[in-house]
Amino acid sequence: MEHTKYQEGRTELAELGKFALIDRLTEGFSARQKSTVMGVGDDCAVLGGGRRKMLVTTETLAEGVTFDMMYTPLKHLGYKAVAVSLSNIAAMNGTARQIVVSIAVSNRYSVEALEELYAGIRLCCERYDVDLAGGDTTSSRSGMVISVTAIGDVESERICYRKGAGLHDLICVSGDLGSAYSGLLVLEREKATYQANPGFQPELDGYDYVLERYLKPEPRFDIVQLLREKGITPTAMIDVSDGLASELLHICKQSRCGCEVYEERIPVDYQTSRVCSEMSKNMLPVSNALNGGKDYELLFTVKTSDYEKIKDCESVHIIGHITDGAPVMVTPQNSTIELRAQGWTAQK
Amino acid sequence: MEHTKYQEGRTELAELGKFALIDRLTEGFSARQKSTVMGVGDDCAVLGGGRRKMLVTTETLAEGVTFDMMYTPLKHLGYKAVAVSLSNIAAMNGTARQIVVSIAVSNRYSVEALEELYAGIRLCCERYDVDLAGGDTTSSRSGMVISVTAIGDVESERICYRKGAGLHDLICVSGDLGSAYSGLLVLEREKATYQANPGFQPELDGYDYVLERYLKPEPRFDIVQLLREKGITPTAMIDVSDGLASELLHICKQSRCGCEVYEERIPVDYQTSRVCSEMSKNMLPVSNALNGGKDYELLFTVKTSDYEKIKDCESVHIIGHITDGAPVMVTPQNSTIELRAQGWTAQK
Repeated sequence: MEHTKYQEGRTELAELGKFALIDRLTEGFSARQKSTVMGVGDDCAVLGGGRRKMLVTTETLAEGVTFDMMYTPLKHLGYKAVAVSLSNIAAMNGTARQIVVSIAVSNRYSVEALEELYAGIRLCCERYDVDLAGGDTTSSRSGMVISVTAIGDVESERICYRKGAGLHDLICVSGDLGSAYSGLLVLEREKATYQANPGFQPELDGYDYVLERYLKPEPRFDIVQLLREKGITPTAMIDVSDGLASELLHICKQSRCGCEVYEERIPVDYQTSRVCSEMSKNMLPVSNALNGGKDYELLFTVKTSDYEKIKDCESVHIIGHITDGAPVMVTPQNSTIELRAQGWTAQK
Repeated sequence: MEHTKYQEGRTELAELGKFALIDRLTEGFSARQKSTVMGVGDDCAVLGGGRRKMLVTTETLAEGVTFDMMYTPLKHLGYKAVAVSLSNIAAMNGTARQIVVSIAVSNRYSVEALEELYAGIRLCCERYDVDLAGGDTTSSRSGMVISVTAIGDVESERICYRKGAGLHDLICVSGDLGSAYSGLLVLEREKATYQANPGFQPELDGYDYVLERYLKPEPRFDIVQLLREKGITPTAMIDVSDGLASELLHICKQSRCGCEVYEERIPVDYQTSRVCSEMSKNMLPVSNALNGGKDYELLFTVKTSDYEKIKDCESVHIIGHITDGAPVMVTPQNSTIELRAQGWTAQK
């Protein structure tokens, strides 16, 4: 029977990294349908023939990898699964309309547990005015895998691809970065203590912000709305799911440019700094911002002529600009550090 | 920490069955977007405001549950994952345009293995003129879960819901039924023999048709095309993924009607009959047709006035008609058997 033939010439998934893997798997495909405006390679596929384009995107969360049932309430999980998929619609400057949900789940879960999950899904649907339009439910051998496909739309002239950044454009980011990862660090620390001593009560007071950032992220449609009100269409946009460094590299690669971002301009919450100082003397908050990911903030570029419009926007930070050099971060001491993306190891 | 609170008042998934579970999980949701024409409850969601509606559907395959890596070549698996999702587009009388693919996969799989999977995905995309427009790749703790969301479209006046069957309409089915399940029975038999005696060479000669039906099903867009050429729009349609009995009950429930199908009219291939007779004296081919599922044929109803147009269509069989009574099968001895759907246990 089958199964062993893939042992020869075996390349481990970890050797390639997520994005090189996706490139390799999808390289033989070509678009045949004229309604496929943009296929693989951005936050969403862009589909349709009219002025208003359709956006489609999918995100998958897997138990034990992207979430840990030990500290993830099912209602939060349902909310998050929807939120991270909708975040891709926001990253194209679009409006979300519907989702379809696929779940593979083992019989370890009860009907009541799935009802909790769906209560979270519903909460996020209601919060962002999105309809649950379908799905599929399968049993799995172990654990839970949940995939949410989100559907939205956007006028052609407002679509923000990753590829549109131009020389000198200002690089902006919403909210703050590194807080979701800091929340994860706290949860992992408390879990380790609990496992060593099951009578232990977890200490979560004072970490409410970073915990919420990790457990219940929000897609930034408020920023999409704000940009619209200000009359700004970003030249490029992406959501921060894998960390600032990785997202900047996506924009630079696809826009064929470089960038300079200033370390001191990268927005970091005080709870993030506090968690870092508790964890280790050597843990810098900016590292969490660069590499932590899962913040689901929007990273975007605007023309310098939009500076006056953007500079006073609440919760938008101008952190640098597009160059024709390499993608670098400038430290307060004025040295430059080349930006590198992390692999696909720590996915939680 | 969390996790134990779902023990009280616990309802097992198996107690409810798949469709009752979906009803229960989705009952609190209501449609808010006017572009949601049809949400949960048919083969596809129907979306959009214009004359041409968009169709969206998703199907999930899980290792160890819906497929067994012991006898499922990865290329076939990729093909099948796309085919079963496209089949839902066919079941709405639509045209498929794009897919997005989500995969959760453990590091037991190599890059080369995933390339095999994607070769199958590509083959099915090419065969049905469909674009791969996006996806997500996540690592999983164990095994593989693959979800394919398919996107298509159809003119409003040609959409076939499950709910449209009318009294006296003729019930038709394409191809033959029970063969996919018979293929699975052969594979499971050979696997059991192999596990008892690892030196054993599986005997698969003479089962080529039923094996292909299980391992590499095809969405019946040829039937959609044929109906179009004949000028027939079915009054209701569904694809046969869970067995004829289950699909007939869906149509009857949603169309608020009953049906009579004639046992001797249900199309069964000779390899299906052969497998049944080999397996057990008591295994009837019609049971595989009624309950086996995974044939991905189209089951549809047409007005009696379309009889002349449909009666000579190759590979379409008229198996009964819609009544205002109960959903029943009539045996050759003229007794009637009430149709019942199987639970969600045997999912392979």
